[in-house]
Amino acid sequence: MKRPTILDIARAAGVSKGAVSFALNGRPGVSEQTRARIKAVAEQLGWEADGGARAFSDGRAGAVGLVVDRHPDVLDAEPFFMTLIAGIQRELGTGPASLLLRVAPDRANEPAIYRQWYAERRVDGVLLVDLLTGDPRPDVLAELGLPAVVLGGPLGRPELPSVWIDDSAVIGAVLEHFAALGHRRVLRVAGPERFAHTQVRSAAFAEAAARAGIRAARIVHADYTDVGGATMARRALTWRRPPTAMLFDNDVMAVAALDAARALGVSVPAELSVVAWDDSMLCRLARPALTAVRRPIGEYGALAVSVLRRLIDGREVAADTRTSAAVQLVHRASTAPPR
Amino acid sequence: MKRPTILDIARAAGVSKGAVSFALNGRPGVSEQTRARIKAVAEQLGWEADGGARAFSDGRAGAVGLVVDRHPDVLDAEPFFMTLIAGIQRELGTGPASLLLRVAPDRANEPAIYRQWYAERRVDGVLLVDLLTGDPRPDVLAELGLPAVVLGGPLGRPELPSVWIDDSAVIGAVLEHFAALGHRRVLRVAGPERFAHTQVRSAAFAEAAARAGIRAARIVHADYTDVGGATMARRALTWRRPPTAMLFDNDVMAVAALDAARALGVSVPAELSVVAWDDSMLCRLARPALTAVRRPIGEYGALAVSVLRRLIDGREVAADTRTSAAVQLVHRASTAPPR
Repeated sequence: MKRPTILDIARAAGVSKGAVSFALNGRPGVSEQTRARIKAVAEQLGWEADGGARAFSDGRAGAVGLVVDRHPDVLDAEPFFMTLIAGIQRELGTGPASLLLRVAPDRANEPAIYRQWYAERRVDGVLLVDLLTGDPRPDVLAELGLPAVVLGGPLGRPELPSVWIDDSAVIGAVLEHFAALGHRRVLRVAGPERFAHTQVRSAAFAEAAARAGIRAARIVHADYTDVGGATMARRALTWRRPPTAMLFDNDVMAVAALDAARALGVSVPAELSVVAWDDSMLCRLARPALTAVRRPIGEYGALAVSVLRRLIDGREVAADTRTSAAVQLVHRASTAPPR
Repeated sequence: MKRPTILDIARAAGVSKGAVSFALNGRPGVSEQTRARIKAVAEQLGWEADGGARAFSDGRAGAVGLVVDRHPDVLDAEPFFMTLIAGIQRELGTGPASLLLRVAPDRANEPAIYRQWYAERRVDGVLLVDLLTGDPRPDVLAELGLPAVVLGGPLGRPELPSVWIDDSAVIGAVLEHFAALGHRRVLRVAGPERFAHTQVRSAAFAEAAARAGIRAARIVHADYTDVGGATMARRALTWRRPPTAMLFDNDVMAVAALDAARALGVSVPAELSVVAWDDSMLCRLARPALTAVRRPIGEYGALAVSVLRRLIDGREVAADTRTSAAVQLVHRASTAPPR
């Protein structure tokens, strides 16, 4: 049955379109008698209150919140967030829920945002990204009793469920690839040190390097921007014993490093191997095309929503849920044996 | 003055953190007397209700809505939306407002989403993208009395304010560039015909081609995806008299066309010139790097929010507001004289 328009209902009920709108949206402007009559006509025509499915049903906000701690100017450079949002929307799309998105480059404001969302019942739960070491947000959310799922883990905290991708396995695969090619001096240009996921990766990096027999494995930190990535690459290439292989914590930094190497006359992959994390269209289009870690980012977002939904529904959830899709190292043209 | 934590307030008032949370968030769980005492202590410590600035103030939803009519799977391929969202957030960032985002690939559901948002007071206004010819959404929003600003115009409809970028000027610049290089057979691979902005561009394309003396100026339509762009490019390159220059309505299709041309042994730019619209990191990274139209997308989103804010505040707004930032044709390596 086709959904009736307000005009269809107005004609059938013999009232104005405005009256139909008032009646169906529960707003003042029509008598209760007229409202009841219009509703009856509307239902006869196939109208449904709240427009269909109700995964986040009555009394609920019908929205999931996400605060992103990035400056708006860098948000569009990194495909990660759009891919994540697409995955979140894919899962939300199965119900009438929306994503309440807030870009708050100043992390100090984040607790106030959650308190406001809670007080005004704007969201049924939130997704937490970029967990910090000693992050104050989980306590704020616990105090409020606002359901939350962390993207990133495992945390081993039953009161704060996480979904996670096995980044240690990724790091191991990258370092084995470098070692197999014969690299012995490897640099990882990591994201900001304050992020918990950066530290998880750093611990895994040290361990995997030792296992792969790479003794000169260093880590420097940058800010995920092209300028940050290029600066670190340029600096490292002027060391007395520069690395012969670099792993970047995002695609934007890796691509910028290609330009930096070119400007210094360092040939990729002949003199420098480069691996990007996460794979994206940027990696496929770069020249040389970048060998990259492909993680299931879309599934990550969708999984987080599905765990959050269970939590909101008061059902049991595991402390940590791992994405089931495989992590792959996609081999392209930016890695080769060192000269 | 540093914003006090819930713990600071709890200690100063000699109550539990939970009691502070209840009191300050206006939730049951404390007596009115205790609530008043906690609030007084909190204010003494520098606590502010609603966390500061209030651009969208009391009684308002504190959110702006955006429904995007794209399948989640293609949303992350096209940088346009993330850049637009970044611009929206940059402007929203000046107040405590969030973006309520909904990806609804089925356009038929969109009126129901607006009705729900309105009935539940989820948003103070909405931004409309991808206006269709004969679009039903403006009528739905007008019925609801929900303030709306269209991205795309000029529409010349005072009841439906728009912000717009002068796409005609862009098309003129591209066709003059092609004509100056000596191209006489030009193809535009446009977006879907149902979008009003596609039609605005098509009218401008025909006019600009005539003005530039390009008589063989054709338009075909594709769906903004890489597959769609590559298919159209491949097809056109096998025409008896193929175009020597192509303009694509988005970056993803243009980049995919480069691969299609390569596969057919058609050299870019020697045998085929390619221009992309809008410029993005994809265009800069493609090889050859793509000559591209750079429009102020971030400003576009920010401007739309600022007009919507005026509308919500009941202030006067112009029917159509044009972005002030210049549109540029960025010359790179993908355009040259035809062979």
